Amino acid sequence: MQKLIKKRSKKAGLPPGTLIHIGEKKSEIPKITIMDYDEVHFQEKEVKTIEECFLFKDKPTVTWINIDGLHQVEILEKLGECYGFHPLVLEDILNTDQRPKVEDYGEYIYIVLKMLDQNNKSNEILTEQISLILGPNFVISFQEREGDVFGPIRERIRTGKGRIRKMGADYLAYALLDSIIDNYFFIMEKLGEKIEFLEEEVVKQPIPETLQTIHHLKREMIFFRKAVWPLREVIGSLERGELPLVKETTRIYLRDVYDHTIQVIDTIETFRDMVSGMLDIYLSSVSNRLNAVMKVLTIIATIFMPLTFIAGIYGMNFKYMPELEWRWGYPAIWFAVVLISVSMLIYFKRKRWL
Amino acid sequence: MQKLIKKRSKKAGLPPGTLIHIGEKKSEIPKITIMDYDEVHFQEKEVKTIEECFLFKDKPTVTWINIDGLHQVEILEKLGECYGFHPLVLEDILNTDQRPKVEDYGEYIYIVLKMLDQNNKSNEILTEQISLILGPNFVISFQEREGDVFGPIRERIRTGKGRIRKMGADYLAYALLDSIIDNYFFIMEKLGEKIEFLEEEVVKQPIPETLQTIHHLKREMIFFRKAVWPLREVIGSLERGELPLVKETTRIYLRDVYDHTIQVIDTIETFRDMVSGMLDIYLSSVSNRLNAVMKVLTIIATIFMPLTFIAGIYGMNFKYMPELEWRWGYPAIWFAVVLISVSMLIYFKRKRWL
Amino acid sequence: MQKLIKKRSKKAGLPPGTLIHIGEKKSEIPKITIMDYDEVHFQEKEVKTIEECFLFKDKPTVTWINIDGLHQVEILEKLGECYGFHPLVLEDILNTDQRPKVEDYGEYIYIVLKMLDQNNKSNEILTEQISLILGPNFVISFQEREGDVFGPIRERIRTGKGRIRKMGADYLAYALLDSIIDNYFFIMEKLGEKIEFLEEEVVKQPIPETLQTIHHLKREMIFFRKAVWPLREVIGSLERGELPLVKETTRIYLRDVYDHTIQVIDTIETFRDMVSGMLDIYLSSVSNRLNAVMKVLTIIATIFMPLTFIAGIYGMNFKYMPELEWRWGYPAIWFAVVLISVSMLIYFKRKRWL
Amino acid sequence: MQKLIKKRSKKAGLPPGTLIHIGEKKSEIPKITIMDYDEVHFQEKEVKTIEECFLFKDKPTVTWINIDGLHQVEILEKLGECYGFHPLVLEDILNTDQRPKVEDYGEYIYIVLKMLDQNNKSNEILTEQISLILGPNFVISFQEREGDVFGPIRERIRTGKGRIRKMGADYLAYALLDSIIDNYFFIMEKLGEKIEFLEEEVVKQPIPETLQTIHHLKREMIFFRKAVWPLREVIGSLERGELPLVKETTRIYLRDVYDHTIQVIDTIETFRDMVSGMLDIYLSSVSNRLNAVMKVLTIIATIFMPLTFIAGIYGMNFKYMPELEWRWGYPAIWFAVVLISVSMLIYFKRKRWL
Amino acid sequence: MQKLIKKRSKKAGLPPGTLIHIGEKKSEIPKITIMDYDEVHFQEKEVKTIEECFLFKDKPTVTWINIDGLHQVEILEKLGECYGFHPLVLEDILNTDQRPKVEDYGEYIYIVLKMLDQNNKSNEILTEQISLILGPNFVISFQEREGDVFGPIRERIRTGKGRIRKMGADYLAYALLDSIIDNYFFIMEKLGEKIEFLEEEVVKQPIPETLQTIHHLKREMIFFRKAVWPLREVIGSLERGELPLVKETTRIYLRDVYDHTIQVIDTIETFRDMVSGMLDIYLSSVSNRLNAVMKVLTIIATIFMPLTFIAGIYGMNFKYMPELEWRWGYPAIWFAVVLISVSMLIYFKRKRWL
Repeated sequence: MQKLIKKRSKKAGLPPGTLIHIGEKKSEIPKITIMDYDEVHFQEKEVKTIEECFLFKDKPTVTWINIDGLHQVEILEKLGECYGFHPLVLEDILNTDQRPKVEDYGEYIYIVLKMLDQNNKSNEILTEQISLILGPNFVISFQEREGDVFGPIRERIRTGKGRIRKMGADYLAYALLDSIIDNYFFIMEKLGEKIEFLEEEVVKQPIPETLQTIHHLKREMIFFRKAVWPLREVIGSLERGELPLVKETTRIYLRDVYDHTIQVIDTIETFRDMVSGMLDIYLSSVSNRLNAVMKVLTIIATIFMPLTFIAGIYGMNFKYMPELEWRWGYPAIWFAVVLISVSMLIYFKRKRWL
Repeated sequence: MQKLIKKRSKKAGLPPGTLIHIGEKKSEIPKITIMDYDEVHFQEKEVKTIEECFLFKDKPTVTWINIDGLHQVEILEKLGECYGFHPLVLEDILNTDQRPKVEDYGEYIYIVLKMLDQNNKSNEILTEQISLILGPNFVISFQEREGDVFGPIRERIRTGKGRIRKMGADYLAYALLDSIIDNYFFIMEKLGEKIEFLEEEVVKQPIPETLQTIHHLKREMIFFRKAVWPLREVIGSLERGELPLVKETTRIYLRDVYDHTIQVIDTIETFRDMVSGMLDIYLSSVSNRLNAVMKVLTIIATIFMPLTFIAGIYGMNFKYMPELEWRWGYPAIWFAVVLISVSMLIYFKRKRWL
Repeated sequence: MQKLIKKRSKKAGLPPGTLIHIGEKKSEIPKITIMDYDEVHFQEKEVKTIEECFLFKDKPTVTWINIDGLHQVEILEKLGECYGFHPLVLEDILNTDQRPKVEDYGEYIYIVLKMLDQNNKSNEILTEQISLILGPNFVISFQEREGDVFGPIRERIRTGKGRIRKMGADYLAYALLDSIIDNYFFIMEKLGEKIEFLEEEVVKQPIPETLQTIHHLKREMIFFRKAVWPLREVIGSLERGELPLVKETTRIYLRDVYDHTIQVIDTIETFRDMVSGMLDIYLSSVSNRLNAVMKVLTIIATIFMPLTFIAGIYGMNFKYMPELEWRWGYPAIWFAVVLISVSMLIYFKRKRWL
Repeated sequence: MQKLIKKRSKKAGLPPGTLIHIGEKKSEIPKITIMDYDEVHFQEKEVKTIEECFLFKDKPTVTWINIDGLHQVEILEKLGECYGFHPLVLEDILNTDQRPKVEDYGEYIYIVLKMLDQNNKSNEILTEQISLILGPNFVISFQEREGDVFGPIRERIRTGKGRIRKMGADYLAYALLDSIIDNYFFIMEKLGEKIEFLEEEVVKQPIPETLQTIHHLKREMIFFRKAVWPLREVIGSLERGELPLVKETTRIYLRDVYDHTIQVIDTIETFRDMVSGMLDIYLSSVSNRLNAVMKVLTIIATIFMPLTFIAGIYGMNFKYMPELEWRWGYPAIWFAVVLISVSMLIYFKRKRWL
Repeated sequence: MQKLIKKRSKKAGLPPGTLIHIGEKKSEIPKITIMDYDEVHFQEKEVKTIEECFLFKDKPTVTWINIDGLHQVEILEKLGECYGFHPLVLEDILNTDQRPKVEDYGEYIYIVLKMLDQNNKSNEILTEQISLILGPNFVISFQEREGDVFGPIRERIRTGKGRIRKMGADYLAYALLDSIIDNYFFIMEKLGEKIEFLEEEVVKQPIPETLQTIHHLKREMIFFRKAVWPLREVIGSLERGELPLVKETTRIYLRDVYDHTIQVIDTIETFRDMVSGMLDIYLSSVSNRLNAVMKVLTIIATIFMPLTFIAGIYGMNFKYMPELEWRWGYPAIWFAVVLISVSMLIYFKRKRWL
C-alpha cells in the first residue's frame, strides 16, 4: 500500500538548496532524451551525459529535455549551473513529496505535479512526481522513473501533426500538463467502476471484506484528492495570464485544462460522497442482518421454551399427577404443542417477523 | 442506473480540438431545424445538410439552428468552419461529460448545461447535455437526442406571442435557459414526492428495501446537484453584464433565471438534509426494533427458564425426595408456576418492557 | 405537514411575466385596505375595487395599500399597469414559493419574505409569503391570506404614536419588516420550549415516539432556516444604503433589524446543533437500554442453564447411578443450586451488571 | 439549566426605541457608582439618583459611570436624554439577549458583550450582559446585577498603578474589555478540567450518566461559543482603527485583546472537537460492552445446551434403551460432559472470546 | 498527557504588560548564549548575566542571542529596557500559551510559534514555545527549556558553510523558522507510522484497546493542528513582503518555508481524515463481530432447542405413550436428532451463516 508520508526528516537542519534525493534509490543511469524542433526542423536523440544538452540552450528552436530518474544528483547540479536555476528549484525537484505548485522565477517557471498510474496487478494507484521547467525556448521535464503518458505528444512532434510544431515552448508545457490531467480521467474511470461494483455488493450481500474494500477505496481517494486539489490553483494561475512566459494564444488552451481539472475535482467529490454513503449503507445492512438473526433466535426460543416446559412438567415424578393416568393425556399434549406452535407462528406473521 | 463517469479516456493524448463524440453511438441522421424570425418575418424548416444553414448566417434576422444528435462529427466541423468557432468549442460540444460553464469568445458565447428528464418507467433522472452558441444574431443549440423542453418557445416564436419576436438572439438564449431551468422544478417536485413518501415509510415501517430506496435517492441527488451547482456561476456571469453580447434589457430576465437557479440549489440542499436525516432515522428505527425483539426474547427466557428448572428438579429420580410423595405436591408446583409467571410479568410491566 | 415543494411546474414554458397564481385556490374576494397619512392627516378605508387605490398614487402623503389574497390575478394586472411595475415583479408576487430577496427597480424596490405563524392546534409552523413594493410615497403589501402581525403598526399609524406618522414610506416598510422579524422570536420561543422538553425526555425516558418528534422538529427547523437565512442578505443590502429610496434616517433602524436577523439565524444554528445532538443522545440511550436488556437475559441464562443441566442429569434413567440412592442426594442438589446461584450473582455484582 | 432563549416576544409590535427590560425583575434599587479621574485627581462615589452623574458630563476628566441593575427604566431614559443617546441604544441595553456587537454612533461607541461567571454550587456557566458606552471623556457601563470582574481595574484607578490614570476613556474601555475576556480563560480552565475528567471516565468505565454529562458539557459549550464567536468581529473592528474615538496608542493594546479572543475561540473549537469525539468513544465503548455481554451468553448457551440435550436423551422412558443398562453408562455420560465442556472452552479460547 | 489548557487565570485583572511567567517553574539559571558573526568575524560565548549582551547591540554584525528558560523575569525586563521592546511583547514571551503569530513593531518583528518534540519513552508529542525577535542586526530567541533543533544552524554559522554568514539577521530568522518547521515532518512521520500500524490492526483484529489508541491519536492531532494551522498566516505574512525588515533576497526562501507549512497542514488534514475513518471502521468491525457471535448463539439454540424438546417429550411419564413400547422407538429418536441437526446445518449454510 502507498506510504502515508515519505521520509523527509533526514533533510532537517541542512542548509536550503542542499540536493538530496528523497525517494527510492535506483541503480540504473537516468535516461536523458532531447527533442528539438521548430516548424521545419526536428531532431530527437538520447544522450549519455547531461553536458550534451547545453548545446541546445541558445538555439532559437524549442527544446524539450526529458530526464527519467532523479537519483544522480550531479546531473541536476550541472543543469542548474548551466541554466542558472535557483537551488531551491533543484531541491524541490529531488524532493518527490512536493505538493503541486507553480513558481515564477522570472526567466523560467517551475511547475510540479503528480502523474498517476495504476498498477495492473494490485490495482493500486501509483503516484509519480513530474517537475517541469518552462523557459522562453525550452521545457525540461523530470520524472522519477521511466514510462509516462507523453507518448502521443512525442508522436505529434515527430509527425508534425496538429499545431504543436508551430507553437512555442509554452504550448509544449501545456500539452504535457494536458496529457497528465487527461490521464486522471482514466484513473477515475477505474475508480468509478470499483465504486459501482462495490455499491451493488454493499446493498445485496455485505460481507466483512466489503468493509475492507471500502476502506481501501477511501484511502485511495484521499491520495488522489491530495494530488489533484492543488492543481486548481496551479492551472488557474497559469491560465489567468499573470506569467509573461505563457503567451495569450496558449492561455485559451490552458482554460480548457483548467475546466478538466475542475471536472476531475468535482468527480472526486462525488466519489467521496458515494463512498462515505456506502459506509452508512454497510452499517445499516449489518444492523438489518443482526435484526434478522435475532428474530430467528427469538422465534425458536419463543416456540420451544414453553413446549419444553410442558414436557418437563409431565416428566415430573410426583405420585399424584392425575393427568398421567388419563387415556388421552399424551395425545392432548401433542395437541397443545401444535396449538402453541401454530398460534406463535401466526403471532410472528402478524408482527411481520416472518 | 446512471453511470458514474463517462468513458473519456479514449481521448487521452490526442491533440486539443480533435473532434471525437463521447456518448452513445446512434445510427440515425442528426435532425437539423432552423427558425428564422424578426418582428415581421418568420420562417421554419428542417434541413437535410448543414450547408443550408449557412445562408442564414449574414441575415439580420434572428436565426435559431437546433441540432439533435451529435454523432456525425462532419456537421460540426463544417459549422465550425463556416462560423469560425474555436476547435475547443467544437470539442466541448461533442464531449457530453461537460460541467456547466459559460465561455466568452468575443464574437460568440459558448454555454453548456444539462437538461434533465425523467424516465417514465424506471423513474430515473436522465441527463442530456445542451450546448448553446450565442452570436450577435443567431443561437445554435446542440442536443444529444431528439425531444426537449423547448416546445412552448417554438410555439411562442411561431405565433408571435409575448415579446420574443421583438427581441434579439440574446433573449432567445435566455428563453432557452429559462425553460431548461423551469424544467428542473418539475424534476424536483417528483423528487420531493419520493422523499415525502419515504419519510412516512421510514418512521412507520422501515424495511431493508427502504434503505435501498434511500440510497438510490441519495445517488440521484448527487447527480442532480452536480448538474445544477455550477449553474449559479454560469447564469450569474451572464446576468452581471460582463458580456457585451447580452443586452441590458435581457439582463433583467436573466436575474429572474438566476433567482430560480438559487432556488433550485436551495431546495436540493434542503432535500439532502432531509435524506441524510432519514438515514439516521432509519438506523434508529432498526435499533428500536432490535430492542423490541430482544425484549420479547428476554421476557420468554426469564419466565420459562426458572419454570423449566423447577420441572426438571421434580423430574429427578432420587430415591428420597419427600415432596414427590406429598398429596398436594403437584398442585403446589402449578401454583408456583403461576406465581412466578405473574410476578415476572408485573416486573416487566413496571420496567415498561410490555 | 408542510409540503416540501410547491407545484410550480405548470408554469414551465410560459413566457416570462405570465401571471399565474401558485398556491391554494380560494373563493373569497381579496380584501384591499388603504391607509393614507402624513403628520397631520389620516385616512383608512377598505375598498372593493382596486381602481379606488389609484386616486392615492400621486398624493404626497404616504399610502399603504394592503392586499390579502392573491388568487384574483386581474387585481395585480391593473395595479401593475397603473404603477408601471415590471411583469416579473407581478409574477414573483403570485409565485408564493419565492426565496426571500430584494430587487431594486429604480423607481420602486421589491421585497419578498416569509411571515411565520404557528397553528394553535397542530403546533406546526405555517409560512405565508409577504411581498412589499416600496415606492417614493407608497408601500403596497401582498399577503396570501387574511391575518397578519401588522396590528400594532396600524394602531400606531391611527393614533400617531411614535415617529411613524412623521417619517416616509421607507420607514413604514422598515416597520413592517421589523414586525415580521420580531414575530420570528415568538416562533423561536415555541421551538425552544419544544426542544427543552424533548431534551429532558430523551435523557430520561427515550421512547420510539421521541424519535418521531425529533424528526418533526428537524423538519420544522429546515423550513424555518430556509425562510430566514436569505434575509441576512436582504436586510443587509437595504441597510448598507445602496438603495436611494431608503433614507439615511431609516437606515439606522434597519441596522437594528439586521441585528435581529443575525440573532434569529444564530439561534436557529444553536437549535440545529442541539437537535442533532439529541439524535446522538437518543441512539446512545437506545444502545444503553439494549445493553441493559441483554444483561438481564444473560444473567437469567447463566444462572438457570447450569441448574437445569444438573436437574437433567439426575433425571436420567441409568440403572447404575449411585447418587440417586444416597440419603442426602436430594438436599445436596438443592445446596448446589443455591451455591451456584449465589456465586453467579456475586460474579455479576462484581462485573457491575447488577 | 440556562434557558435556550429569553422571552422577547412581548416586545413584538412596539415602536422601535420602546424601553422594556427583558430579563428577571428585581426589587432592589440599581446601584450607580462613579469614578472620575485624571493623572492627578481622583474621585469615587456611589450616587442615589442618576441626576448626580450629569455634573460630570462636561468635565475634561475621564468619568466611569457603572450601573448595576437594569430594571428601572427611568434611569436609562434620563441618562439617554442628558447624553443624547439614540433610543435604539437604550433599547439594546435593556434587551439582555443581545448578540455581542459594536456600533459607532459618531459621538459615542456602543459595545455590548457577555460577562461569564460560574455558579459555585451547580458548576453552571452564568451569562451576564455588559453594555459599554464609550464617549470622548466617559465610559458608562451597564450590568444586569451586582458583582463583576472589574475589581482589579478599580484598584488600579484608585492607586494610580500602571498607565490607566494617564490614558483616556478609550483605554478604560479597553481595560474593561480585557478583564472580561481574561475571565473567559478562567471559565475555560474549569471546562477543560471537566473535559479531562470525563475523558478518563469515558474510556475506563462508561456509565449511562456519562452520556448525560457529555450532553450537558455540549450544551454549555454551545452557549459559551455563542457568547464568544461574535467578539472576534467586535474587537477586530475596534482594533482596526476605523473608529476615531479609539486612539492609536490604545489600539496596540486592543490587538492584544484580539489575540486573546482568537485564542479563546480556538480553544473552544478544540473543546468541541474533543467532546464530540467523546460521544463516538462512548458509543463504541457501549458496543464493546454489549459484545462482551453477548459473548458470555453465547458461551454459556453453547456449553450447556448440548449437555442438557444429552441429559434429556437419557431421561427418556423408552423401554429398549440399551445404554441405560450398561454398567459404565452413567460415568461415560460424565466423561462426555467434561469432554464437550473442555473442547468448547478451547474453541472459545482460540476465537479469543475468553 | 498534555494538558488541555494552561493556567492563565492568575493573570486576570493585572495591568497589561505585567510580566508573569506562565508555565512550569524551574530552579536552574536560564542559559544565555550569544553568536555574533559577519562574513569574516565569528564569536560565540555563553554569558552569565544578560548585561553582557548589551555590548553587541550597536555592532553592525549579526547577533543571535538565545535564552533557554523563561522563569527569571528580570532578564526579560532588562533586555526589554535596553532594546526598547514593548511591554506586551515581553508579556507574550512569558505567556507560553500563545497562538503562533507575527507582530510588526516597526523597529523589530515579534514572531512566536511552537517547537514540537517527541518524548522517547511515552511517545507523546511535547510542545515548547519559541519566541523570536528580529531586529535590523539581531535575532533574540526565547525557549522554555534547553535542547532545540538549531544544532545544524549553529554548526553552519561556526563553519561558515552555506550562505548564512553572508546574509543578514532576517536570513538567520528564516533559518530558525525553517529548522523548526522541518522538524514537524519528523513528528509527522512518527504519527504516520502510528496511523499505518493502527490501520492494519483495526481491520484485522480490533480490540477495545484499539479504541483507546485511536482516541489518543485524535487528541495528539488536535494539538498538532492547533500548533500548525496559524503558521500558514504567520509565514504567509512574512513572505508577502509587507515587513521592511525582511529583505527581498530572504523572501524567496520564506516562500519555500511557506510551501512546507502548507504541506504539513495538508498532511495533518489527511491524517485526520484517516483517523476519523478508522473510528467508523472500528465501529463497523465491532458490529460485524457482534453479528458473528449472535450467529453462533442462534445456530446452537436453533439446533438444540427442538432436540431437547423431543427428548423432553419422551421423558414424560404418561401411562399411555405407545411409542415408548416400540422396539425401534429409541433408534428412531436418534435418527430424528441427526436428521434435524443436518437439515438445520444445511439451512444455515444456505443462509451463509456458516
